[in-house]
Amino acid sequence: MSKSPAAAKRGIPSKENFKEWYPFMVEAAELVDKRYPIKGMDVWRPYGWKTMRLIDNLTHDEMERTDHEEVNFPLLIPEDLLDKENKLVSLLKKAREAGVDPSELRLEDDVEGFAKEVYWIKHAGETKLDKPMFLRPTSETAMYTMFPLWIRSHADLPLKTYQIVNTFRYETKQTRSFIRVREIHFFEAHTAHVDEDDATRQINEDLEIVKNLMEKLNFPVIVTKRPVWDTFPGAWYTIAIDVIMPDGRTLQVASVHHYRDQWAKAFDVKYEDDSGDQKYVHQTTYGMSERLLGATVATHGDDKGLIMPPSIAPIQVVIVPILSKDGSEEIISAANQMVKELKLEKIRVKLDDRDIRPGQKYYDWEIKGVPLRIELGPRDLKSNSFMCARRTGEKSSYNLQELISSVRKELDLVNEHMKERAKSHFNQHIKKMPKVEITGSTISLEQKLEDGFVYEMAFEGNDAEAEMIEKETGFSLLGESTSPYSEKRKCVVTGKPTHNKVFLAKTY
Amino acid sequence: MSKSPAAAKRGIPSKENFKEWYPFMVEAAELVDKRYPIKGMDVWRPYGWKTMRLIDNLTHDEMERTDHEEVNFPLLIPEDLLDKENKLVSLLKKAREAGVDPSELRLEDDVEGFAKEVYWIKHAGETKLDKPMFLRPTSETAMYTMFPLWIRSHADLPLKTYQIVNTFRYETKQTRSFIRVREIHFFEAHTAHVDEDDATRQINEDLEIVKNLMEKLNFPVIVTKRPVWDTFPGAWYTIAIDVIMPDGRTLQVASVHHYRDQWAKAFDVKYEDDSGDQKYVHQTTYGMSERLLGATVATHGDDKGLIMPPSIAPIQVVIVPILSKDGSEEIISAANQMVKELKLEKIRVKLDDRDIRPGQKYYDWEIKGVPLRIELGPRDLKSNSFMCARRTGEKSSYNLQELISSVRKELDLVNEHMKERAKSHFNQHIKKMPKVEITGSTISLEQKLEDGFVYEMAFEGNDAEAEMIEKETGFSLLGESTSPYSEKRKCVVTGKPTHNKVFLAKTY
Repeated sequence: MSKSPAAAKRGIPSKENFKEWYPFMVEAAELVDKRYPIKGMDVWRPYGWKTMRLIDNLTHDEMERTDHEEVNFPLLIPEDLLDKENKLVSLLKKAREAGVDPSELRLEDDVEGFAKEVYWIKHAGETKLDKPMFLRPTSETAMYTMFPLWIRSHADLPLKTYQIVNTFRYETKQTRSFIRVREIHFFEAHTAHVDEDDATRQINEDLEIVKNLMEKLNFPVIVTKRPVWDTFPGAWYTIAIDVIMPDGRTLQVASVHHYRDQWAKAFDVKYEDDSGDQKYVHQTTYGMSERLLGATVATHGDDKGLIMPPSIAPIQVVIVPILSKDGSEEIISAANQMVKELKLEKIRVKLDDRDIRPGQKYYDWEIKGVPLRIELGPRDLKSNSFMCARRTGEKSSYNLQELISSVRKELDLVNEHMKERAKSHFNQHIKKMPKVEITGSTISLEQKLEDGFVYEMAFEGNDAEAEMIEKETGFSLLGESTSPYSEKRKCVVTGKPTHNKVFLAKTY
Repeated sequence: MSKSPAAAKRGIPSKENFKEWYPFMVEAAELVDKRYPIKGMDVWRPYGWKTMRLIDNLTHDEMERTDHEEVNFPLLIPEDLLDKENKLVSLLKKAREAGVDPSELRLEDDVEGFAKEVYWIKHAGETKLDKPMFLRPTSETAMYTMFPLWIRSHADLPLKTYQIVNTFRYETKQTRSFIRVREIHFFEAHTAHVDEDDATRQINEDLEIVKNLMEKLNFPVIVTKRPVWDTFPGAWYTIAIDVIMPDGRTLQVASVHHYRDQWAKAFDVKYEDDSGDQKYVHQTTYGMSERLLGATVATHGDDKGLIMPPSIAPIQVVIVPILSKDGSEEIISAANQMVKELKLEKIRVKLDDRDIRPGQKYYDWEIKGVPLRIELGPRDLKSNSFMCARRTGEKSSYNLQELISSVRKELDLVNEHMKERAKSHFNQHIKKMPKVEITGSTISLEQKLEDGFVYEMAFEGNDAEAEMIEKETGFSLLGESTSPYSEKRKCVVTGKPTHNKVFLAKTY
């Protein structure tokens, strides 16, 4: 996409230079202000926060549809609760190294470092606290301390809870708005079930929710079961959802974990079953964050600015009156009437009646990514019509009598175009993996992998081979796709036919 | 109100014993769970959190109506920002003691202890931080660091922002759910204006918002200008909103502060006026918290449980089917039809189809304070009618054809009764102040003040006299009512006629 003269004039970097475009755009569109004096902690400005809250609303709707209940846990967690978690994580790690089924484990000894990522509170007022606390990086520990108090019998299950809260990670890597931050706007669902199967059903429900959300955000995703070495600490398995960013690197925007009864054993979360026996619950979690907004910005934006999916656009329609020397009053009054009608239909609309040129207004709303612009001038009004300009391109004129239906139709068109463009970007950035030859400890690729692309391959090799590929290419294994090949293909290493579809990528 | 046998059976303390009733009820109604292992930090359970979110929604609506924009600031504040605030507070304090008009102040030296109330972060991961940070107790410091970057000219004013966030205070006093907690669910509006008058207009707008909210929560409040010694640090004046709790003590549920340009001077928040001059802005803040929920619980509840105002009731109507041996299916299907119709009208309804006795269901929903219960039995269905039981007492039968209008009417009646009861409690707990005689440094009261009451008096005495009264009675001066006497009354001390209405109370 070529840079528009207007954009160049305003100093907008080309999106091809994504590294500069992204940080410029999150501030130019007034999503956040990065000048707050703590690195990795941005101030959410009204436009950004409203967008995020609209994303949250999509999540709330899905949670309500699936009978999850919203809770809100304290931010602070006492240090001693971490011990159980550390114990669990460390034992699981050892078990994996030794090839033991983690569900066979019993928890006894050994503590190690989760502590590297958290902010510590050891002082309050002028007091040194006896019992240090830390800011939640995520809430397993806090929640699973309470679950045993809430779960008595099978009648209390499934327990489906979630919260949307601020979490904290002491990031030492480079920070990036929405993508890698130290205070995270975080969604976490935590569920408990009678058995493994019911927990698995929950995982499937979560993936359906992810699908619904991505449909609303207009971007395609890669869904894979993460390899063992990339599984969330404490999880039996992790399914992760990745977006392909403009630079071809992938960004994990959601993840779903099946915990089996591992955490239940660590936190003693039991229930009484039908026959009066005490059993451990099986648990799952599902996490998302403000990265959803980061991915939206990155996927849809262009050289003129953002393009907001109508489902989360704080302003879905902006009306720009084109004033003439006479008849201006008439136009403003007609525009106000349109605002009234659109609001009645719950369409988020804004009338831009600032005293500046229409062209200036266009640029401003293009930067903010308002999906639809309505222009209303004297000629339009005379012909009882108005002009619709889609942020994804092209204009159409409609009759004023058909305001609501035409706006709905135009927003649908914007959605359609956004999906097409995102899908086409997605497809263009996935390449077939070249053939790999592995003999003993030597590996050779038919062709070097290119940065800026995700590689797809049929793969039925083992973990050691996967690791060799990672090492040789410098790419990471996202994992095995949850949508395998419908017809078997030859494994890039062994040549044996397999349904397994695996992705390799450079990741954020 | 006498304790119902059912309540007694369930161990509900009588509300007359408010000290036991309140903590029992917040847990029995499943608003919070106090068993989280940090004192003063409760877990919000789904029912409590939903109620709080509905209160927040009332606030969001009012903020939108008055063109405030929602922002979200980082939780953490670098220590050095506190210096400016401390400097300001300390200078203001000195100025007040010396009788200087605080707006005449210039900020230069001197730092003192705001630090006693905050949680400190001095460690992250395994690192000791160079720059300690603290958890916001409120966001003046964080926000006013950014305001100079956002305000350039008079065109940027008024700036009206707000946020709903978690804030933290290291409380050393006894904690109480919603009333005195260490993690606070907090609302704070911060505005900046061209001059003192415009800031004053904002204060009036805030008080109008408070009025609208209290109208929805069904309780009367005392609105007073706090005495100088009880003014928020850094404020020119503070107007506070107090509720009279069942034990006659008052609870401050909201406060509004006029800052004049004091903070602007400390944080260098300036704008360019029409003639190109740099001027300091005038600022206001408006704060509320989860105390709104605490006051709702305390004001409206009775010996059977809570009574939720319909505006914030997570369940406004519960339908309890009265099943007979035959015809049960018909009843359940009719109840489901009612649910459908009520939901279409955005009425929050729940069908309780648990397999337990109706009486048991009644008790459960009474504890949770659901304002309206619909009973639907075979006899009702035969006569094409249903029974409505109001949580505030009394039952009426209505025709099924008039479901929506009757439910609306019944909810209005609940509101009416709640307001009446709250108003009557309010009036019964305000007494006329006995005559006070002050001669030199001796003070005598015609009659001792009784605990459990708020005292109202005509007062035109000076600060020294007010302080003597506080000391002698052990009651605190809430301040001067914003609704003075329409006709002059005799001052309880001097006997001179005055419009000033002043309140004395024991406070939370």
